[in-house]
Amino acid sequence: MSHGTMLAAVLNKPLDMEMKQVPIPTPGKDEALVKVYCIGVCGSDVHYYEHGRIGRYVVEQPIILGHELAGEVVAIGEDVKQVQVGDRVAVEPGVTCGRCEYCKAGRYNLCPDVVFMATPPVDGAWAEYVAVRADFLFKLPDTMTFEQGALLEPLSVGIHAMNRANVTPADRLLVTGLGPIGLLAIQAAKLYGVKEIYATDVVPFRQELAMEMGATAVIDPSKENVKERLQELTNGHGISVVVESSGNGRAIGDAVRAVKRGGRLVLVGMPAVDEIPMNINTIIDSELDVFGLFRYANTYPAAIAALSNSDLDIEKVITHKFTLQETEQAVEMARTQKDTSIKVMIYPGMNQ
Amino acid sequence: MSHGTMLAAVLNKPLDMEMKQVPIPTPGKDEALVKVYCIGVCGSDVHYYEHGRIGRYVVEQPIILGHELAGEVVAIGEDVKQVQVGDRVAVEPGVTCGRCEYCKAGRYNLCPDVVFMATPPVDGAWAEYVAVRADFLFKLPDTMTFEQGALLEPLSVGIHAMNRANVTPADRLLVTGLGPIGLLAIQAAKLYGVKEIYATDVVPFRQELAMEMGATAVIDPSKENVKERLQELTNGHGISVVVESSGNGRAIGDAVRAVKRGGRLVLVGMPAVDEIPMNINTIIDSELDVFGLFRYANTYPAAIAALSNSDLDIEKVITHKFTLQETEQAVEMARTQKDTSIKVMIYPGMNQ
Amino acid sequence: MSHGTMLAAVLNKPLDMEMKQVPIPTPGKDEALVKVYCIGVCGSDVHYYEHGRIGRYVVEQPIILGHELAGEVVAIGEDVKQVQVGDRVAVEPGVTCGRCEYCKAGRYNLCPDVVFMATPPVDGAWAEYVAVRADFLFKLPDTMTFEQGALLEPLSVGIHAMNRANVTPADRLLVTGLGPIGLLAIQAAKLYGVKEIYATDVVPFRQELAMEMGATAVIDPSKENVKERLQELTNGHGISVVVESSGNGRAIGDAVRAVKRGGRLVLVGMPAVDEIPMNINTIIDSELDVFGLFRYANTYPAAIAALSNSDLDIEKVITHKFTLQETEQAVEMARTQKDTSIKVMIYPGMNQ
Amino acid sequence: MSHGTMLAAVLNKPLDMEMKQVPIPTPGKDEALVKVYCIGVCGSDVHYYEHGRIGRYVVEQPIILGHELAGEVVAIGEDVKQVQVGDRVAVEPGVTCGRCEYCKAGRYNLCPDVVFMATPPVDGAWAEYVAVRADFLFKLPDTMTFEQGALLEPLSVGIHAMNRANVTPADRLLVTGLGPIGLLAIQAAKLYGVKEIYATDVVPFRQELAMEMGATAVIDPSKENVKERLQELTNGHGISVVVESSGNGRAIGDAVRAVKRGGRLVLVGMPAVDEIPMNINTIIDSELDVFGLFRYANTYPAAIAALSNSDLDIEKVITHKFTLQETEQAVEMARTQKDTSIKVMIYPGMNQ
Repeated sequence: MSHGTMLAAVLNKPLDMEMKQVPIPTPGKDEALVKVYCIGVCGSDVHYYEHGRIGRYVVEQPIILGHELAGEVVAIGEDVKQVQVGDRVAVEPGVTCGRCEYCKAGRYNLCPDVVFMATPPVDGAWAEYVAVRADFLFKLPDTMTFEQGALLEPLSVGIHAMNRANVTPADRLLVTGLGPIGLLAIQAAKLYGVKEIYATDVVPFRQELAMEMGATAVIDPSKENVKERLQELTNGHGISVVVESSGNGRAIGDAVRAVKRGGRLVLVGMPAVDEIPMNINTIIDSELDVFGLFRYANTYPAAIAALSNSDLDIEKVITHKFTLQETEQAVEMARTQKDTSIKVMIYPGMNQ
Repeated sequence: MSHGTMLAAVLNKPLDMEMKQVPIPTPGKDEALVKVYCIGVCGSDVHYYEHGRIGRYVVEQPIILGHELAGEVVAIGEDVKQVQVGDRVAVEPGVTCGRCEYCKAGRYNLCPDVVFMATPPVDGAWAEYVAVRADFLFKLPDTMTFEQGALLEPLSVGIHAMNRANVTPADRLLVTGLGPIGLLAIQAAKLYGVKEIYATDVVPFRQELAMEMGATAVIDPSKENVKERLQELTNGHGISVVVESSGNGRAIGDAVRAVKRGGRLVLVGMPAVDEIPMNINTIIDSELDVFGLFRYANTYPAAIAALSNSDLDIEKVITHKFTLQETEQAVEMARTQKDTSIKVMIYPGMNQ
Repeated sequence: MSHGTMLAAVLNKPLDMEMKQVPIPTPGKDEALVKVYCIGVCGSDVHYYEHGRIGRYVVEQPIILGHELAGEVVAIGEDVKQVQVGDRVAVEPGVTCGRCEYCKAGRYNLCPDVVFMATPPVDGAWAEYVAVRADFLFKLPDTMTFEQGALLEPLSVGIHAMNRANVTPADRLLVTGLGPIGLLAIQAAKLYGVKEIYATDVVPFRQELAMEMGATAVIDPSKENVKERLQELTNGHGISVVVESSGNGRAIGDAVRAVKRGGRLVLVGMPAVDEIPMNINTIIDSELDVFGLFRYANTYPAAIAALSNSDLDIEKVITHKFTLQETEQAVEMARTQKDTSIKVMIYPGMNQ
Repeated sequence: MSHGTMLAAVLNKPLDMEMKQVPIPTPGKDEALVKVYCIGVCGSDVHYYEHGRIGRYVVEQPIILGHELAGEVVAIGEDVKQVQVGDRVAVEPGVTCGRCEYCKAGRYNLCPDVVFMATPPVDGAWAEYVAVRADFLFKLPDTMTFEQGALLEPLSVGIHAMNRANVTPADRLLVTGLGPIGLLAIQAAKLYGVKEIYATDVVPFRQELAMEMGATAVIDPSKENVKERLQELTNGHGISVVVESSGNGRAIGDAVRAVKRGGRLVLVGMPAVDEIPMNINTIIDSELDVFGLFRYANTYPAAIAALSNSDLDIEKVITHKFTLQETEQAVEMARTQKDTSIKVMIYPGMNQ
């Protein structure tokens, strides 16, 4: 199984993607070989595809992108105990060292030696197979689909936001920005028992999808004053937590203004510019907590436990589906159709 | 409105309850007069009725019992801003000083100067009216019933348990003991997004009710090994949090044994004896957290926010209903029919 | 004692201060009358003196300023139990309602109904006497001076910063800005067991004082690269917590850059301008916690417990002393001599 | 260097210890070979020596004991980056997997796959050399002695107790039991800025040593009522945190009684019997937190940072010193002279 070649989407350089045969990876002693069933297109994938870099990470040699996936275990290394051949699994795509101060303190998302899929020069999994260290595979219960398994990756960002801000049913939430991360942050909040979840975005399609996925109300910040509208909607209680997923300077400003005294603001969306003007006086006067969020840690078991018994339909974020052969079309869809696409999913399994 | 007399159930001495006319209380400047719609019978009420004391609290003069209530505001003092006449409200029955170290630190449930309804010598509200400091009244949304409002009191114990143990959807829970507190702790766990909630009790009626109210599975500790059964039920994941509401020595032992390493145990049920043998070595070797729980603090707003948008049917714990005139029958029912009654509710409003 | 008049420094309008006789306040039932021994000049006092306003607080009628004080109880109201006549006490200058959601949650510094000394229109205590609710008086042990008692107010800001950021001896700290708040934040860090405490400021006098008061090293940001210098000084460990007390945009930028991944940044100093450019990408990529800080809560008992057994010499921040008659000179000193004065102290007791 | 033989103290069976030559361990790729300078005798070593087992851990084949050590790196594996040959290091003696749910969550002390020195069947380091995975070696600053380095192990228990109970300078502490763990818990509390630290023990030598090492006062529970005496000593403030290190049933009872409402109790000392009667009603009525403590995690860097700049003299716990050849005498001393010995230290380096 682990010999021979497989089809993969290789990005040679920006905007130059090639479907070609590459060797099937051989799993190490502590790894499993996973046959990829489905895998999403993430904003970072699109960014590497288009610009060839994100910050300090630069595509300097051909790379396979993709890191939001689920599939079936088809082979395991000799030391693997966590999974068996035949298991349906979700893949957590960052393999950490387990030995640095961050790993030892439970914040392995900050591990400086992490090997993260689809972050240059590490290959991702827009391919038929991928080898992954077995402790980053999580068995899916029969009640969960592969699609849900693949979506655990972006959902994990929302769950990590809930954990960082210690969200409970006592909170009223605002999510700014309704891309996949924002929409799935709404789902995470629902899993954590939050009942009033407001959202902002200017795109009608996204506004509608947020309502379908359980937002209490959606505000268009180009048409309404966000803070005032929230005061009305919450009967004066105000918003205790904001998850900012847009990276937009105006939305960040709205977030600081909208949150009540003593509230919490989680920053998830990375701005395209280095510096954003912040109202420091409000942060001080309202004694806000502002939490930066980098990926996630320890979210998969919780997400599976919560989702597998829930009636949430997180697959609603999947707006388009492609075969592995169509990977370039999939990425172009995500790149150019931002007003009508949310999560584009690729199905390597369909080619065979 | 605040002149004249009202009907009240006065406990003269243990097992001697009398229905009589007493003056309607006059609300102080910062108080509201609440017309009681419904009010529950709590285990502590029954205990005072039967034994005349709980620990250091002794019934030394006639007392009105009852502290789980909701009703309508019919008059307010001149400084009251939190509620208006006509508001439907739940009553938090312990009025705290706001000035001691516990109040200032946010743990007002430990206030040494608390004035708590139906704790000698403070009167409760098995009566037509009660005066309460307005900051302990919480307006009920139109979607909530008075019964739900009254049940916020015992539900608050469960919510406080979730807060004390920092419960999230990542947890698997065990509730030992299925009286009103245990059953409502299950509801609290559901509000906090917990999906696997197990319970133990020996009474079939309670086991069935727990299943109806959303328990994942119920174990009869007289028939099965609790720890082993939980290992099976959780597919080996184990229980991360136990809420012990029985006060039973054997159940406490089960709780310590059942919880996984690093788990948390919340002690709610007060044993009838002073000392219970505890396996200290397990607490140390498994590095457990054991949290004592005394009443609750800051739970009403969260409970209302969560419940008013939920589809939980917490009223299922109400097994019997009585008029105020029938208070003694209500208490006798709760005292003597423990295998078939859970929450007995009294309706002072029905008398008029 | 509580009849007659006393000398007070009354600010009629900006830059117009008058010494005059005003009535001695009569303590209410739950208040004590305190004879002021010494009272500091705070930056906010200077700002009201000079500009007549801070943000939404405007001096619209004559006001007595001053809120950092200690003195002796000379009379008590009938309900007072916390202190006795003759007690030497520190005064916490903000009296809170005890009934709002913030007070009940232990964050009384966010109480919307707080009555805070020397915040218009509430009078402060640049006077011979002041009446204060007794639960905001804290008895000084014999080993503590009145000066230490008065300095508990600005020290409390540092202690609150330690609590907000959950500082332990595992941390390495940076304090940016070496006014009274910054210097006392260094003292707070020492009380919390932090051993490596770095600081930045451009004024040589302040740099020297920081070293005298126990800073590990001081960096002049106009001469050195703060981040690089800290890497050297900490042998590559980096800074885990920054307390930003300058309100200076450049220092805030230094703070975000200087702190290590996963670190915490406490914002204390209010900028003179509304918006400061922040590097949001760094906050996200390093997953920082940014905590706004507004005054303090529950700090006095801890500060007294810690200070009274410590060998810290926090009085080193007192650079100048004046009588009550000299209040205007005291304020002018603080206003105009920022390079040579830190904390200016006024001694009402000396006039008599 | 890593060839040849070395002297080691081998326990063949209970009470049968033999000094013999064994192969010097060869460090793996990620390990370093440490020449042991000094290594303590721990209560668990004595227990294995005497009884051949502790709970589920049984000495079934000859074993080298000892796990509290510091020494010098004399060789490193090819992948080691954390230390260099010549480094003076403290050794954290439990090597964890880095991949299980506990390791990933930052609670690696609960790792089920930990390889812990001197816990059967894993050898310890009563020998000239030991090989250790390099991420569990911590470089000692020049200002720290090897003895301090070796004592970081038992001191870590105290530091972990401070972290578990979130101890700050606001706390007043009681330590019950004054063996090495109790005495070093006092030192940990001092490092965390606690100023009032009380202790209980019945042995005069230990009482005196506690006073020398900075206890505020020591109470003999055989002569005084612990709770009453603490009320006096704290001027009625009471104790907010107890560290119970004796494992004695009576002391555990004292601990529950002595702590104030809302207080925290850390259980460290393992009782010789399975069950200890606990006053559950007090735990509930006072809403106590009870934290079991198993070893420690993430304590070495903090301990080194704090100790290296402190004037604490933790070496005072070392009451006796032996060469490696004298290991049996050392253990016998610790076993039989409990009233006059605290920490017995063995110096393998002295033999050569």
